[in-house]
Amino acid sequence: MKREKIIDLFKKAELIGTEVTVMGWVRTRRGNKHVQFVALNDGSTVRNIQIVLDMTRFSDEQLKPITTGSALRVDGRLVESMGKGQTVEVQADNVLVYGTADPETYPLQKKGHTLEFLREKAHLRPRTNTFGAILRVRSALAFAIHRFFQERGFFYLNTPLITGSDCEGAGAMFQVTTLPLNELPKTEDGVVDYSKDFFGKPTALTVSGQLEGELGATALGAIYTFGPTFRAENSNTPRHLSEFWMIEPEVSFFDITDNMDLAEAFVKYCISYALENCRDDIEFLAEHYDKELIERLNFVISNDFVRLTYTEGVKILEESGHKFEFPVYWGADLQSEHERFLVEEYFKKPVILTDYPKEIKAFYMKQNEDGKTVRAMDVLFPNIGEIIGGSEREENYDKLLARIEELDIPMKDMWWYLDTRRFGTVPHSGFGLGFERLVLFVTGMTNIRDVIPFPRTPNNAEF
Amino acid sequence: MKREKIIDLFKKAELIGTEVTVMGWVRTRRGNKHVQFVALNDGSTVRNIQIVLDMTRFSDEQLKPITTGSALRVDGRLVESMGKGQTVEVQADNVLVYGTADPETYPLQKKGHTLEFLREKAHLRPRTNTFGAILRVRSALAFAIHRFFQERGFFYLNTPLITGSDCEGAGAMFQVTTLPLNELPKTEDGVVDYSKDFFGKPTALTVSGQLEGELGATALGAIYTFGPTFRAENSNTPRHLSEFWMIEPEVSFFDITDNMDLAEAFVKYCISYALENCRDDIEFLAEHYDKELIERLNFVISNDFVRLTYTEGVKILEESGHKFEFPVYWGADLQSEHERFLVEEYFKKPVILTDYPKEIKAFYMKQNEDGKTVRAMDVLFPNIGEIIGGSEREENYDKLLARIEELDIPMKDMWWYLDTRRFGTVPHSGFGLGFERLVLFVTGMTNIRDVIPFPRTPNNAEF
Repeated sequence: MKREKIIDLFKKAELIGTEVTVMGWVRTRRGNKHVQFVALNDGSTVRNIQIVLDMTRFSDEQLKPITTGSALRVDGRLVESMGKGQTVEVQADNVLVYGTADPETYPLQKKGHTLEFLREKAHLRPRTNTFGAILRVRSALAFAIHRFFQERGFFYLNTPLITGSDCEGAGAMFQVTTLPLNELPKTEDGVVDYSKDFFGKPTALTVSGQLEGELGATALGAIYTFGPTFRAENSNTPRHLSEFWMIEPEVSFFDITDNMDLAEAFVKYCISYALENCRDDIEFLAEHYDKELIERLNFVISNDFVRLTYTEGVKILEESGHKFEFPVYWGADLQSEHERFLVEEYFKKPVILTDYPKEIKAFYMKQNEDGKTVRAMDVLFPNIGEIIGGSEREENYDKLLARIEELDIPMKDMWWYLDTRRFGTVPHSGFGLGFERLVLFVTGMTNIRDVIPFPRTPNNAEF
Repeated sequence: MKREKIIDLFKKAELIGTEVTVMGWVRTRRGNKHVQFVALNDGSTVRNIQIVLDMTRFSDEQLKPITTGSALRVDGRLVESMGKGQTVEVQADNVLVYGTADPETYPLQKKGHTLEFLREKAHLRPRTNTFGAILRVRSALAFAIHRFFQERGFFYLNTPLITGSDCEGAGAMFQVTTLPLNELPKTEDGVVDYSKDFFGKPTALTVSGQLEGELGATALGAIYTFGPTFRAENSNTPRHLSEFWMIEPEVSFFDITDNMDLAEAFVKYCISYALENCRDDIEFLAEHYDKELIERLNFVISNDFVRLTYTEGVKILEESGHKFEFPVYWGADLQSEHERFLVEEYFKKPVILTDYPKEIKAFYMKQNEDGKTVRAMDVLFPNIGEIIGGSEREENYDKLLARIEELDIPMKDMWWYLDTRRFGTVPHSGFGLGFERLVLFVTGMTNIRDVIPFPRTPNNAEF
């Protein structure tokens, strides 16, 4: 079906003065008995093309089905427009209505809807300007991520979603089963007989692909994962999803400094890519939701990230005289308010904190010689605090094993991971980025449910 | 940690004659008391760099830990090589062993292992030439997919993994739950009380993102999904995985011809991208596993796909005189042997069959006026049969509803999908491609367990 995308009508100067066919959905119709104007959108851009209907050529009856949400094909001439803010418009010769949208029942009428209302209509909200913009930015960011790593010789590794390991340690897990819950097979001892389950043992949805990522990195050199991740935590906050997407690069022969360089280059690349490729969408979101958005994005890409240790960071916070809700002391897990103070008030730059106390970080992080800290790194951003967490990994078999035993992690699940340290172990590092955190930051949205098409949260698995 | 990747040693002529540092894993060591040769690989390429150790500068004791699988850092001079098949080599000045690999216990000794053996060692098999090559090709194909769609203005849409719909109809599903299986909450009627489950109702892992993809396409115009998909079918075959990755583009204002054009351009693009960017890997795989691989790939990209209807295809099969294992008649679901006959014997070109009997296709496919067939399309390839399945979608609300009722699909799960036809419905089309099928085709492998890093199959969820 030959047509021009609306984004091309604005971009391709050679189309001006020619006959074009456009297809899309009606955002609004207004006008008088002489001329009617339809704002048409096809999802290719946040911008609508104005369709001009000369009422000497169309009847009221013909235009009746052209209401907000209806779908049209329009044949006409693309001309430069006199209207304010319009660059081109289509003078319609023919209009075909593909599908109507009954004004009595179509939920997205032209008046502005709250984000809360639209969350209940997640199946239709991509048709709004706001969610169209967010989803286009999300798509561009996803591609920027692949491009960044592929350009640098990283290989995309698909780590498994269903896992038999129960010790990833990053959070509560969803169980995956094919056992009939109303007729569970039981063993002689009266407990569930998992030998009858699909995989012959209990399985769950992954909370992180990192451990398998390390298997990939110690073979292919440099890998990244980008896939769905799950947390069965009962937290109903604007920052948590039960199903979200995560990016986890892992690189052999990388120490923590290489890792920081990579993380900084990575987020700057993604944000720059979005600014260059989604300007209209970001400007729309800035105008309607967050006036400082573009300034904040430029702030991040144009500043070197400050790098300092957790110990130095805590000292600054302690000596700041600032009144925090949560107390600050060496050994405390920093809260968002602390992280944002360092970024927004003290340094006025993005910050990378390193060398955290080992007690508040994961077992696989490389132990420093002080016996107290590990080679962790957290990247802290304005507005949201931590956006990236990573570390150099403990590559020494004996030290890693001692830490696993100290923390009582069941070894039966760890043998394959330990093999990376038994056989040809190498220094290596990696980090994790929650994709929706990045999309939140770039779109200026404040609720994570608004930056994923179909959010999963406690008691919510609609659509 | 400054180093050169091995792939760059072969590519960057300016490095010849300079001091370089390389890091990687030992594939083999051989030689005599005067000189030793180490084949080092760092995962960046299937090619090993030869490290030359002049034994006037190194002791036997020093070289003892340098066995297959050990990890090294080597400083030395990059020089042009005299050796057969080598272009450059490193004359070592210093060697540091990062990690040893005890020859008594390291499972990947230099002798060739069977693919079956390596499946048991899936955590280490990426360190072999074969799986390194497969995983690099897989990564390149994934990027080609994103590039193809992004270049054409498609938006990447992340459809949900956990779903509350049980009518996707494409296969058996895995249940997702946080209920404690050994102490299940029950209602007064004695059945499982799903109101206590995480989402307040039964949920499962998705078998297809298409229905949500249609929500995206009827808002953003053109979308594609690329994510994990699940089938809880107890089929232990070389062609089935319980967890696999699927690509599902969906496009508004596309009829079945547009859809065929897209599918043909898409697979040709991906295969061409792999041939251009993974030549060494594909040549390695061709040499060791499938001598006709490159010829077969070129066959696909250099031929126009033949397009004909199912009815015409069945007629050709019936009249062929060929003896098939499964009978052929109008209404039968075609088997791989039939598809391959059309492609390999009859047309000697890839084939797209269209307009299948509605009884053997899904409810959402557009009904033809004959009342018997639907606007389905299957793309058939040499060696593997069907690689892509798709259709124009039924956009008429009444016809779609009638088909849903005919097939007894529970409407409670379908209201949101039907809304796409109630409000601003448009002609649209899409298709699905199992990613591992494509990787199988491009790598010449024959078992699908060998083209995904950590396969999930009945009774197997290791690593």
